[in-house]
This record gives sequence, C-alpha cells and structure tokens, in this order.
Amino acid sequence: MPARLAPDQSRGYLIAVGVFAGLDTEQRLVRRLLSICPQRAQVAMLVAGELDLRVLDEVENALLAHGAGGVRRAHLNARAEAERPETLGAIENADLIVLATVHPLKLTTLVGGTSLAKLLRRRNADGTPIAGLGAGAAVLAEHMLASGESGATPRMGAVTLAPGLGLTNRVVIDQGGAASDRIGRLLGALALNPFALGLGLDADTAAFIGPDNVLEVVGHGGITLVDPSDVGPTNITEAGPQAPISITNLRLHVLVHGTRYDLDFRRPL
Amino acid sequence: MPARLAPDQSRGYLIAVGVFAGLDTEQRLVRRLLSICPQRAQVAMLVAGELDLRVLDEVENALLAHGAGGVRRAHLNARAEAERPETLGAIENADLIVLATVHPLKLTTLVGGTSLAKLLRRRNADGTPIAGLGAGAAVLAEHMLASGESGATPRMGAVTLAPGLGLTNRVVIDQGGAASDRIGRLLGALALNPFALGLGLDADTAAFIGPDNVLEVVGHGGITLVDPSDVGPTNITEAGPQAPISITNLRLHVLVHGTRYDLDFRRPL
Repeated sequence: MPARLAPDQSRGYLIAVGVFAGLDTEQRLVRRLLSICPQRAQVAMLVAGELDLRVLDEVENALLAHGAGGVRRAHLNARAEAERPETLGAIENADLIVLATVHPLKLTTLVGGTSLAKLLRRRNADGTPIAGLGAGAAVLAEHMLASGESGATPRMGAVTLAPGLGLTNRVVIDQGGAASDRIGRLLGALALNPFALGLGLDADTAAFIGPDNVLEVVGHGGITLVDPSDVGPTNITEAGPQAPISITNLRLHVLVHGTRYDLDFRRPL
Repeated sequence: MPARLAPDQSRGYLIAVGVFAGLDTEQRLVRRLLSICPQRAQVAMLVAGELDLRVLDEVENALLAHGAGGVRRAHLNARAEAERPETLGAIENADLIVLATVHPLKLTTLVGGTSLAKLLRRRNADGTPIAGLGAGAAVLAEHMLASGESGATPRMGAVTLAPGLGLTNRVVIDQGGAASDRIGRLLGALALNPFALGLGLDADTAAFIGPDNVLEVVGHGGITLVDPSDVGPTNITEAGPQAPISITNLRLHVLVHGTRYDLDFRRPL
C-alpha cells in the first residue's frame, strides 16, 4: 500500500472519458465537467487527426448548452502546428482543455516534445482541468496504452506501451473501444510493470481524478479498476512471443456513477 | 478463506474445456485427459443438439490417436432419449465421459431430472472423469452460466444463471465464446451470489479439477479466475434494469498451462 504523497492540491483535475456513444442522456458527464470550472468557462478543444466532426459538434453543443462561455477548436495534423501562436494562445487562455484524437499515438507523436506539450503540463500543474476523450484519455497518463489485442488473457507482445503526456503516473488508461477486450490489455500492461493502477473506461463514462488523487466515476457505465499492489509471480520473463501471460493476485473493482476511489491508498471510499 | 471440506478422494476428475479451435497443436489437452484414465480407455461422448460433426470427429480422432480404446457417441435430441438403454449403457461402461452441447441449456433441459442425469452424478461420484467441451463445460457446475451479454461491466439482467448438472459447486464456469466478454458475465454471476469462484476458459484450454479440488490448467491459452472471498459492497439490490453493477475487492488471477490452484484454500500453488 503506497503512502499518500504530499498531494499537490493546486494542480487541475484530470478527466479520462470513455468513447462517446451518446448514452449519457442526462449529460451528467458534461455537467460535472463544467462544475469544476469557473462560470462561463472558456473551453479549448485540441483535436489530433481527422475525427468525426459530428461527435466534436455534439460535445461542443453539450458544453455550450450547460453553461460553457465558448469553445475554441485547434486542429493538429503536423508537429509544426503544435508551435502555432493561435494554438498555444487557445490553451493558455482556456479554463478547460479537452484532448481528442483518432489514436493515442496520433496525439503524442504530434505533440511530444513541443511547446504545446510543455504548456499542457504547466496549465494542469497550475490548476486547469484537462479532459481526454476516447483515445485522448489514454494520452493523459505517463505510460500510455498505445494498442492492444483482444481477449481476456494477456499475451506476450500483444500490448504496446508508449510515453504519454505524463500528467499522471498513478494509472494506465484503456478507454475501451471494445470495452470487453480491455482486461487483457490492462493485465498485459500491468504485467510489464505493476506500479500503476489499470483503469478501463466504458463508453460515456468518465474518471474524474481530483488534485487529491481521489477518483470519482461519472456517467452511464462502469469503470474497471485493476490494482496490482499484491501481484504474485508471473511467467513474463520466460514466456515466448504470443504466449499467454500468467498473473496472479490482482485486485479488481468495477465502479459506477457516484462511487469514489482513493488512488493513493488504493481503496474504494 | 473457506476451510477444506473433507475431500472425496474417490470422486472422478471434472474437466472444463474451452471451445474447440484447434490451437492446442501439441494436443497436451487430449494427452492429459487420457493420462487420468485407464489404458485403452472407453470414451462415451454425450452430444446434445446438432453440433458441428467435424469438431466431434477431430476430438474423437485425437482421443483414438493418443490411446483411447474406443469412442461411443450418444446423441440427444429429446428427453426420452435420456432414458434409452443404449445411452445409459454407454455412460455406465465408460472410463471417460465427454459432454458436448450446442448450448448449456440444451443439455440441461434434455437431461435434467432423467435417469441419465442421476447416472452421470453417480459415475463421477464413483471415480469416472467427466469432461465438458465448450458449452458442455458450463453444465458441470451446480450454478450454470446459461447466457450473458458482452462487455466488461456487469449489468442487471444481463446474466442468466440456471441449475447445471451439479457435479461441483466450487465454480461458476464461462467457457468463453467471445472470451473477452467473460469478465462482465462472471462478475454478474458472482454479484448475484459471491459464494463460488468464477472460471473463464480460453479456447483449447482446460481446467482439470481433481478429487482434491486442486485445479490444473492445461492447453493453449489462459484461465481467468475471479475470487469473491473478500467482495465489498455492491449496488445490486438498488440497481435498476440494465443498470451497471458495482462490485469491489475481487481477486483476479490469469493462470496458464501447468499452473495449479487450490479451490478449497483459494490460492495459486
């Protein structure tokens, strides 16, 4: 059980949001998102790659309908665009930053090492909430689940971890896609290094990670949380390519809307 | 942690085998199956409903190729057939009984309450190993996972439990189908009554449950084992239809070929 590190109460929320499917009909997610922002919040939406604009429009409309003061979109398709003053200005002046991308690696390869990446880390450290939508959720973590195969059993080589934006090292995030395949991916990631918690997000479901490292579940579905604190022996050092990985003594939770979990003490509240 | 019940060392093995996909190229599974039978074992294959005969042929050929003395098939398509002397005779004289069915409920609805069901329980109690293939694996348990929806988060009403053959009450078995969807089904089943262990089988992977209630994994893939011994609060009594079920403090293991787990003391060996 890790000791609580002196929590940096001044840093902003991190909000990992599962893929958008329009199931959160009460829009609890958008309302909760705006509840942690100032009135008439200015929202900056950072979009990496060619996303479905209807989804972005729906999110933008929901934000405006529930009190956002304005939404600015910055589209990224080349690294040079991560240095553009308009883009940096939008992030600099936002009360809420939303990351959207077609693939976790699309955003990190465009942003990694740029002024924009530094700015995102500074704004969050200074208290600005940053939300990742769908594939954008994975990017929030220091160790990013970049891809993974299907199935409940982790297999050697089936999971790719890559450096994310590094806004938290407490969790490894799987935003789902096929939600049901997440377990194998998360276990594969944790088998590589069982220091973080594995977080699997259902569609239209979000993990609100507060400055105090307490996670709150908001939205339609559930969040799968895998805690490797007591993990037992694994065959990962012996297993050959594509061999199934054995891993024991993981703690598993499924948390739903309204439940909270302490990421420092690793227990449901 | 449950105390070990006086193990009935005389009862036969129960072997829960995942769906057949031809991946166990070394045929470790068939060889291990015959290793717990007498030489030149007589095998009775009980087939409920219209199964793919090529799969049954492959299994039969593998059994004969590795030393089975003979394989008799008894097809069941009506309850009356569960009283036929030929069928009962085949089971009575078998050294190994294999259950195959198109759906768990197909076999239980044809066999439940018949002389055949009684005979199967007696033969296993007297020491004869009984294997369930694919959907036939679920049938071995007292509480049978009859159907379930997809996804990693259990939902109210998404899981159907039905009475199985009752050869073991230690586990609830999900033989997979879409292996990756099993977690939600198993958690849903355990949320209803967290007394049993949840067992999820990959294709071409088997759980050999010995008379001493030690489980051994044999075959190509992994076995997901969910232990609810320390389960925490759940919302199951309040959750509405299709609402996601919250469930906490489950212990999760993924076990691969050669690993063993004590079902009485609930720990990997």
